[in-house]
Amino acid sequence: MSIKITGTGSYIPSIVQKNDDFINHSFLNNDGTNFENDNTVIIEKFKSITGISERRYAKDEFTSSDIGFLAAEKAIANANIDPETLDYIIFAHNFGDIKSGTTQSDMLPSLAVRVKHKLRIKNPKCIAYDLLFGCPGWIEGVIQAQAFIKAGIAKRCLVIGSETLSRVVDKHDRDAMIFSDGAGACVLEDTTEEGGILSHITESYTYSDAFHLSYGPSFNKDLKDDTMYIKMDGRKIYEFALTHVPAAMKACLDASGVGIADVKKVFIHQANEKMDDAILKRFYRQYKTKIPEHIMPMTIGNLGNSSVATVPTLLDVVRHNKLENHSLNTGDVIIFASVGAGMHINAIVYKY
Amino acid sequence: MSIKITGTGSYIPSIVQKNDDFINHSFLNNDGTNFENDNTVIIEKFKSITGISERRYAKDEFTSSDIGFLAAEKAIANANIDPETLDYIIFAHNFGDIKSGTTQSDMLPSLAVRVKHKLRIKNPKCIAYDLLFGCPGWIEGVIQAQAFIKAGIAKRCLVIGSETLSRVVDKHDRDAMIFSDGAGACVLEDTTEEGGILSHITESYTYSDAFHLSYGPSFNKDLKDDTMYIKMDGRKIYEFALTHVPAAMKACLDASGVGIADVKKVFIHQANEKMDDAILKRFYRQYKTKIPEHIMPMTIGNLGNSSVATVPTLLDVVRHNKLENHSLNTGDVIIFASVGAGMHINAIVYKY
Repeated sequence: MSIKITGTGSYIPSIVQKNDDFINHSFLNNDGTNFENDNTVIIEKFKSITGISERRYAKDEFTSSDIGFLAAEKAIANANIDPETLDYIIFAHNFGDIKSGTTQSDMLPSLAVRVKHKLRIKNPKCIAYDLLFGCPGWIEGVIQAQAFIKAGIAKRCLVIGSETLSRVVDKHDRDAMIFSDGAGACVLEDTTEEGGILSHITESYTYSDAFHLSYGPSFNKDLKDDTMYIKMDGRKIYEFALTHVPAAMKACLDASGVGIADVKKVFIHQANEKMDDAILKRFYRQYKTKIPEHIMPMTIGNLGNSSVATVPTLLDVVRHNKLENHSLNTGDVIIFASVGAGMHINAIVYKY
Repeated sequence: MSIKITGTGSYIPSIVQKNDDFINHSFLNNDGTNFENDNTVIIEKFKSITGISERRYAKDEFTSSDIGFLAAEKAIANANIDPETLDYIIFAHNFGDIKSGTTQSDMLPSLAVRVKHKLRIKNPKCIAYDLLFGCPGWIEGVIQAQAFIKAGIAKRCLVIGSETLSRVVDKHDRDAMIFSDGAGACVLEDTTEEGGILSHITESYTYSDAFHLSYGPSFNKDLKDDTMYIKMDGRKIYEFALTHVPAAMKACLDASGVGIADVKKVFIHQANEKMDDAILKRFYRQYKTKIPEHIMPMTIGNLGNSSVATVPTLLDVVRHNKLENHSLNTGDVIIFASVGAGMHINAIVYKY
């Protein structure tokens, strides 16, 4: 038995929001004071750290479940399966559906239910649920799907990660420039083929690190409403990620029995280019090995950080040869890894 | 191997909201028009259908994760385990944390993370995630925990169901009287004892039934804000439940190999007394068997419908002999069953 990804799909929203589009934003410090530098400098510094030049926003008429559905449709077509044969639809997100211009999260019914409804699946044995697990939610959905297959209660699962972070950013917070909208999905199946998932790891560091990402008020203290926005302590997240993610990736790779030299690609959550580069560097340093060329595909420059959607979108883009210098061949060993709100970390070692 | 519940806990909020407390509410039809009857008649009719005399509301200072934590603490104490040995904390809910007097759902970090943080668990291998699955979320959490144990990635899981529905009701909707706040939890373990989970079933009917429970505007058309509230089509839910729940329970019992005569208790989601009675009647009718006395413990009369919390609360109350005419003995076969937003149905046949 091997548990393999047999199809992928993604939806890259059509609205391109460039860094220059933030030039007239009134960015503030977290205490509400103004920055000394003007926005040209702020944006240049932002770009040099995060690697982000532009990001994508979903059209007003779309919610997270809408774009999740569009990615799911493509993954099903790519896997060439009858959607009625799905045993699970697992939808990873963190904010539910938020209509453009509103602030309430709508998760009733759940987003997985909405996708299954839109896919016109009749089979009641196809179980649709939502998973909240921070940015690592999509990878965790794959790990849960694998568990259901191993437990004998599923053979074929659809795992979706979708988010519209443009609806939860504080426009007075520079971090608003990091976040984007996007959706990715895969079909995971019990197959008789070689390879598939070789090992996985999940960790939840909640003792001291639970609130590095949280929902909080705007930096603009003049706003009198109580609306909450996505807030992050970038410095603490960076330190946390550098301390824990390379070690978790190593534990996962070592458990797989595969040597570092055989790793062909690392698909890491696109949170911040500098952080991802530093994680990769530390990961390889543990093996006293040089980082091979073209090992880590990146889309953050043009797509931003779309939370749960970055890894499945990246995988979909590479599987379909849409990223220069990146392709996948049968037998290639790849690593998926993510880190985010919780703080959670997870990784999968996978033989393509 | 048997997978057993080794501890339970619940938190019953302290604020008692009686039916009479709704006497001055301005209830409206879904088209915004007034009712012909006055509230005395409306409340009397409500009570005769739902069986609800009073319900519980959490204090303003508590959110769903706070009361979920209180239930979790008790379940851990009751199981007499070291919380550091938990492999999973699964938190079932549908609205996140909503602070009193606000409308936004806060799920960043997830509620499971908040509980793990409050429990002061350091072990990063204890994975904390949230599950959205309508009212059947807690039972589904138990089913997922069982799958993780069977797949070999867990031995001991904490499953919490908590909700503060008082924060999402439309006070102009008579259904506001149904919903309540509450939290329940259990510890599920891989044991060498007899019994435990014998069979389970889950069904998601999303084709025609996805929106019987949804988030929608107030019945008061004069309100100019866009706040959404829990809305339900009671008639459709009743018909749906009567059509599908007894059959799902039968399929689950038949799969367990246990005969109907050996069923000692049915712990059903406390949605509405008349509906629960009708489900039980149809369930037994399928076996051409009379309903035994004291088969279905009920707490809805005093506790209302607290969604994911009703089944674990009911179980906890009965396990601790706090409900007249109800107790559990080793070897007793019991059924858990739920139905709710999705529409989802699930059931577990369990040997105590």
